[in-house]
Amino acid sequence: MHAPVLRDGDVADRVAVEEPLEIRAGDTALAVTMRTPGHDEELAVGFLHGEGLLAGPVAAVGPTADLAANVVVVDAPLQAVARERRFYTTSSCGICGRGALDEVAVHAAPAPPGPVLDRALLAALPDRLRQPGFAVTGGLHATGLFDAAGELLCVREDVGRHNAMDKVIGRALLDGGLPLAGRVLCVSGRLSFELVQKAAVAGCPILVGVGAPSSLAVELAADRGMTLCGFARRGCVNVYTGGGRVRDL
Amino acid sequence: MHAPVLRDGDVADRVAVEEPLEIRAGDTALAVTMRTPGHDEELAVGFLHGEGLLAGPVAAVGPTADLAANVVVVDAPLQAVARERRFYTTSSCGICGRGALDEVAVHAAPAPPGPVLDRALLAALPDRLRQPGFAVTGGLHATGLFDAAGELLCVREDVGRHNAMDKVIGRALLDGGLPLAGRVLCVSGRLSFELVQKAAVAGCPILVGVGAPSSLAVELAADRGMTLCGFARRGCVNVYTGGGRVRDL
Repeated sequence: MHAPVLRDGDVADRVAVEEPLEIRAGDTALAVTMRTPGHDEELAVGFLHGEGLLAGPVAAVGPTADLAANVVVVDAPLQAVARERRFYTTSSCGICGRGALDEVAVHAAPAPPGPVLDRALLAALPDRLRQPGFAVTGGLHATGLFDAAGELLCVREDVGRHNAMDKVIGRALLDGGLPLAGRVLCVSGRLSFELVQKAAVAGCPILVGVGAPSSLAVELAADRGMTLCGFARRGCVNVYTGGGRVRDL
Repeated sequence: MHAPVLRDGDVADRVAVEEPLEIRAGDTALAVTMRTPGHDEELAVGFLHGEGLLAGPVAAVGPTADLAANVVVVDAPLQAVARERRFYTTSSCGICGRGALDEVAVHAAPAPPGPVLDRALLAALPDRLRQPGFAVTGGLHATGLFDAAGELLCVREDVGRHNAMDKVIGRALLDGGLPLAGRVLCVSGRLSFELVQKAAVAGCPILVGVGAPSSLAVELAADRGMTLCGFARRGCVNVYTGGGRVRDL
C-alpha cells in the first residue's frame, strides 16, 4: 500500500502506491482506473455495481494468470450496453443536473426509512475510520462501512476516493450484504455527486463525510431520500438532507 | 460558484456548485465531466490539451446556443483517433505503471532545466493561492500558476482537482502561454499521476502540492525531469524529484 521513496537531497519518505488497473469482462476491457493495489476484486465488482452494469450475480472475479498485469476479470452477466456515463435527458434539452439525477434514479431505489442515529455518533465516525496507510503516507482516502451502533464493519483505503468506496461496496456485494439498509458509509474527504451516487445505488441511507458536499451531491441525496452529513469533525456535523434519521436535531 | 442550501433542521449553508459539462468537437461528444460552472472554455481546451488530443491551434471555443445546456464546443483539429486513456505497452505484457509513463512521454517533452527557486518560496506558494470559493464553501480544489518570483498569474477553483488544473492550463493555451517553461504550478490537494501528467504535457518544470504524492506521480516526475514538491505547508516542503531547481537543499 506504500512504497519507500528517497526524496531528492532529503530524508527517505513513504508514498502511497498508485498503479493502473484494467477491469475486464471476458476479453472486453470495460475501464481503466488508477488505484492503490489491493482488494482489486472488490474494486472491480464495486465499480461495475455502482455504474449499474451488473445484470446478475457475480460468478467469479480474479486476476489474470499474469499477476503483474494489473488486470481483473469479472465473470458476471452485464447490461447489454456498457453505457458511457452521459447524463442526457433528451437531445433537445442537452445535458443538465436533472438528467444526472434521473440517470441515478434508474439504478437506485429511494432510501429505506431508517435507521435513526445520534448526531454525536455521526460526528464521531471519522475518528473511528482506521487508516493505517494514511498514517504512513498521508496520501490515501478512506471509506468505512458502519452499522447503526457505529461499529466499523469494513474500511478500505486508496489514492482515489471513488476507489475506496467501490472497494467497500464490492466487499459487501461479494459477501451478499447489499443493499446496505441500516448501514452508514463514511468518507475521509469531500462529498461529490459520484460518491452519493455510489452510496445510493448500494442502497445506503446515510452518508457522512469529513469534507464539504457539492450542490449536486445535496440534490441527489434529497432526491433519493438519503441523509447527507458533511464537515464531520471535532464533534460537530452538518446535516444537509434527511434530518429525520438524525436524533437531537 | 456557490449556491445557498438550507441544511435540514439547521442553519443555511453555501455549497460548491457541481454540474455536468459536455466537451464537444463539432457534433461529437468527447467527454463529460462533473465540474463547477465557470471558465468552461478554459476547461475544455485544457482537458483536450492534457489528453494529447489537440492536433493544432484552437480556432474557436464557446458554449452552444442554448446556454443552459452545459455544453462547450471546441473548433480545433484533433488527433485522428480520440484515444481512450489505456496504458498498454504490448498486449502480452498487459497494463503496467511503465506503460503509463511511456504514454505520457509521447505528449510531454522532458522538462526544461530552469528555473531555480528558494525552498522557502516554494513552501509559501499555497498561502498565495487565493481561494474565494473555498473560503465560502470549503468544497473547492484550486490550482495556481506562478512565475519564478512567486507571483500568482492565474488561479482557478473547481469541485474537481483535475478540472482546476485543466482551467489554468486552458487559460494559458488560449493566451498563447504554452509551454509553461519558467513557471510553477501549485495545487491545493494531493499529487496524483494525472496531475503530474497534465503539468508535464503543459511543459511546466515545477509542481507543488499541499498534500502527498503517489508513487506513480513521483515516478512520472522523475521520468520527465520535473521538480515535484509535496506537503507544502507551515513553511516546509518535501522535494521528491528534481532537487536541482530548489535552492538551499
